[in-house]
Amino acid sequence: MKSKFATRVTTASRSFTRTILDLTAQSSTISFAGGLPDAALFPRDTIEKHAKNLFATQDNRLFQYSNASGVEALKVEIAKKYALTTSAEIMLTNGSQQGLDLVCKTFLDEGDCIIVEDPSYLAALGLFHMYNASIKAVPLSKEGVDIVVLETLFQKYEPKFFYTIPIFQNPTGYSYTLENRLEVVRLAKQYNVILLEDSPYEALRYDGEQTTSFADLLPELTIALGTFSKTLAPDFRIGWIKAPQEIISALTLSKESTDLQNSKFFQFICASMLQNGELQEHTKTLIEYYRPKRDAMVNALRELFGDSIEFVIPEGGMFIWVNFKKCTDSMKLFDVAIKKGVAFVPGSVFFADKRISSYGRLNYTNSSLEQIKDGIEKLHLAYKELS
Amino acid sequence: MKSKFATRVTTASRSFTRTILDLTAQSSTISFAGGLPDAALFPRDTIEKHAKNLFATQDNRLFQYSNASGVEALKVEIAKKYALTTSAEIMLTNGSQQGLDLVCKTFLDEGDCIIVEDPSYLAALGLFHMYNASIKAVPLSKEGVDIVVLETLFQKYEPKFFYTIPIFQNPTGYSYTLENRLEVVRLAKQYNVILLEDSPYEALRYDGEQTTSFADLLPELTIALGTFSKTLAPDFRIGWIKAPQEIISALTLSKESTDLQNSKFFQFICASMLQNGELQEHTKTLIEYYRPKRDAMVNALRELFGDSIEFVIPEGGMFIWVNFKKCTDSMKLFDVAIKKGVAFVPGSVFFADKRISSYGRLNYTNSSLEQIKDGIEKLHLAYKELS
Repeated sequence: MKSKFATRVTTASRSFTRTILDLTAQSSTISFAGGLPDAALFPRDTIEKHAKNLFATQDNRLFQYSNASGVEALKVEIAKKYALTTSAEIMLTNGSQQGLDLVCKTFLDEGDCIIVEDPSYLAALGLFHMYNASIKAVPLSKEGVDIVVLETLFQKYEPKFFYTIPIFQNPTGYSYTLENRLEVVRLAKQYNVILLEDSPYEALRYDGEQTTSFADLLPELTIALGTFSKTLAPDFRIGWIKAPQEIISALTLSKESTDLQNSKFFQFICASMLQNGELQEHTKTLIEYYRPKRDAMVNALRELFGDSIEFVIPEGGMFIWVNFKKCTDSMKLFDVAIKKGVAFVPGSVFFADKRISSYGRLNYTNSSLEQIKDGIEKLHLAYKELS
Repeated sequence: MKSKFATRVTTASRSFTRTILDLTAQSSTISFAGGLPDAALFPRDTIEKHAKNLFATQDNRLFQYSNASGVEALKVEIAKKYALTTSAEIMLTNGSQQGLDLVCKTFLDEGDCIIVEDPSYLAALGLFHMYNASIKAVPLSKEGVDIVVLETLFQKYEPKFFYTIPIFQNPTGYSYTLENRLEVVRLAKQYNVILLEDSPYEALRYDGEQTTSFADLLPELTIALGTFSKTLAPDFRIGWIKAPQEIISALTLSKESTDLQNSKFFQFICASMLQNGELQEHTKTLIEYYRPKRDAMVNALRELFGDSIEFVIPEGGMFIWVNFKKCTDSMKLFDVAIKKGVAFVPGSVFFADKRISSYGRLNYTNSSLEQIKDGIEKLHLAYKELS
């Protein structure tokens, strides 16, 4: 039967992350590997209150088929975030991963070129492979992408889009400077390239000033993806797309043939929590809760590793991208670290060409302060053993 | 921007059904056009009870990320339906439409051949077009598919799969005879063709005996799709796939890159309702409620139209497929019917080649007995006016 599968189906990139998940399922392992919010913070009582209220106030149409683009009340709330007066440029998706899938489905023919940051979000790279896209990578540094390389790629390959995570990037935690953003905008305009802007962590800012998004700077060429998975709860499965109306129409048709629609139930709850400010308040709580975790990891890394590693302190998000510079292949560090009882994701998997890397991605949101301290100590033992 | 879209994106087949939806959104129009269950029957109190219970008994992991294949308790309940002792051959999807999409994604390369019934489910045809499949159609009659044509197609085109709705088919309401099923199985084995068996209406049987599915007859070559949208509620967005384990593994990988996972909340509720027999009882209620609706439509059609039309009384499901034989193009009948205040779906859209047709699909589950009587009278006036 295997020979019947489409060529797009490859299992290569998945198997390693599955290995990590299997390993960290053992409760004794401290995991900095995932990208999960802390379940302790989910606003359970508020969700329950609104669920009860839905049953009390909505008629049976709540459970009937409805339209593909989602609950109007929630689209209106999201539109406000972009200072839009109508919801015509917004649609809802089954998490922002589905937003990525719908954009690929709607824009990519076999072999079409797209640009990604190097490194980039693992599950996006996997998805782009599924569409048999020709993937070109532009180097990312702490200031943003390499503009010279980006221009060459835009010019040479006429890409369908540039997939960019400009704020608290995954895996690096880096944010583009405004100057870098403006350069990207200039090139996107000049070469008529769509910016596929993914901002799942945007709301989780611990320091610094709010930045201007590509959706603000270049709305006519930006498809922006957002999610409530990091601020509310992943199981709500609510992401959104903001794009010019013509694109939203095409994406909505793709959504219809893909799965008809999403459940309205949690969309209504989410809308209510935005209308009365509960979600905004909850996000502040999250920030106050996650900041000390980031600080704990930063401090533990500095104290124990000193100059033997390099990293940029992320102003927000969920990850620290560490250059374990005395260990040219962080996959080897991973093997030893797992034996010591701590997990992280070796950098290699985040690069389009899966090259050997001295980097590793460490998540701090889903561990306690104690686990962060213990885990970094264990990681340091592993590092000493190797170097 | 339009030129940037993938060639798979076409809006042609969608626009007409959207027109119907817009027209029937006016409350004065009686609609036999949709395929909706009756919202009045949704087991709201039971759902609310289980929702409350979930909040009372589950910890916060209820709202955390989880695995792509769905809640184990529900997979186990579905596995029982197929007399399986483990859930390894089951995965859950965002409605069965997503099951279709994941199968296409996992099996179809550009231009691959697939076989459909002629006529077939509209949204499946649209989806297959999105994958740039080469679609071949096999004639369907009230006994099943044309075996001679099917063999020729299997032999000539080596299709990736045959998309079949063997029970209470959409749009026809026809069911394959056992003899026809066995012939299909023989050919599938001989030519090694996967049977993609879609059975959304299976549980809604008003007369006759339960039949043997392709999943029972030829499990090693069948991918079966099921759904709770017709028996519980569409907004639950719970469909399932039953297939050999190797295929489920590949489909699960596709699911991960497509949207990571579904919400667990309603999956848990659905599992509880199956465990304690509530859903099984509810299905019996639905059958007793829908049967008189089917009868009312059958009787009204017979009384008013007499021999001027032809149709087969469906033993279950949601649709009657009427041959308006005095009107060679039912699209013209549709135009007049809408002016009289009643809607149905002209047969043309269900054929792979969209040929002119004298048939029309009438839904009886989502109208009251009075609306059925009134609507068929209005349709008859339109028919008289045309012939």
